[in-house]
Amino acid sequence: MFVIRKAEERDQSAILSAAKDVGVFTAAEVACVDELLDIFLHQPDNHDYTFIVCSDEHDRLLGFACYGPTPLTEGTYDLYWLCVSKSAQGKGAGAALLEQVEKELSTWSARMLIAETSSTPSYDPARSFYEHHGFLRCACIRDFYRLGDDLIIYAKYFTNQGSTS
Amino acid sequence: MFVIRKAEERDQSAILSAAKDVGVFTAAEVACVDELLDIFLHQPDNHDYTFIVCSDEHDRLLGFACYGPTPLTEGTYDLYWLCVSKSAQGKGAGAALLEQVEKELSTWSARMLIAETSSTPSYDPARSFYEHHGFLRCACIRDFYRLGDDLIIYAKYFTNQGSTS
Repeated sequence: MFVIRKAEERDQSAILSAAKDVGVFTAAEVACVDELLDIFLHQPDNHDYTFIVCSDEHDRLLGFACYGPTPLTEGTYDLYWLCVSKSAQGKGAGAALLEQVEKELSTWSARMLIAETSSTPSYDPARSFYEHHGFLRCACIRDFYRLGDDLIIYAKYFTNQGSTS
Repeated sequence: MFVIRKAEERDQSAILSAAKDVGVFTAAEVACVDELLDIFLHQPDNHDYTFIVCSDEHDRLLGFACYGPTPLTEGTYDLYWLCVSKSAQGKGAGAALLEQVEKELSTWSARMLIAETSSTPSYDPARSFYEHHGFLRCACIRDFYRLGDDLIIYAKYFTNQGSTS
């Protein structure tokens, strides 16, 4: 059983542990999760970043997602982070988090959701996940993150209003 | 004759006037220029955004550029804004600004410079400019900004270390 809810102050250390333990994020990326979480938890007027968590029936955190409106767009949103603890992967927690993100976006007139990820082998599961959940691979920018580490951009369109080229 | 230098407090209103008068930026985009310029001018520890201006021999502002390191990358930089006043367009001010950006980036071990722009007709000159100055068109994300307004991503690679797919 999954419980999905907005992140709270008490989730902070479990969220950061999950981000570290998953083993694919750099120290700078974990620091970025921390920074955005801090904005979400402590700046009530913030509408840029929303964090939700997925817990099991014992209130143990299995994963989290962070999303928000893409600046300077109308109706485009970014899935900034989607992370499921290694021990919980492959059991549906990621799909449950994504479903909740999409449910919320549907009330905000969202047209599309963007997910940026890496081309490296450690992100194979992430890319498979997006491809199995309706995202279209729209772009590859070679060596974007560092040499040999390309940016892959996925987009999921929510209506028939748009489609990728 | 062009004078290129770092932006100063006294340039603020001319920069915002240039951003408004060029006629392609939305109110939200002009507000974004203002926000980043404020960070550059008033947060001396900021290394995220650098503004340079191009003036004529009478110290009249012709255009400006804003650039900085792309978060979570190593050696990738973003050309966040490049704007030349309508009356000064086609005379080399944009090229002079870009040349100065690249000169500075070359001292920072930059590998690549990213420029994001729009697919709409009002951005035809911008896209032509990038294509004539060594940028490669890497991506198109349909309807990204709004319906019918796609995101076009350009990248300029500075060495033989990388190339676009």
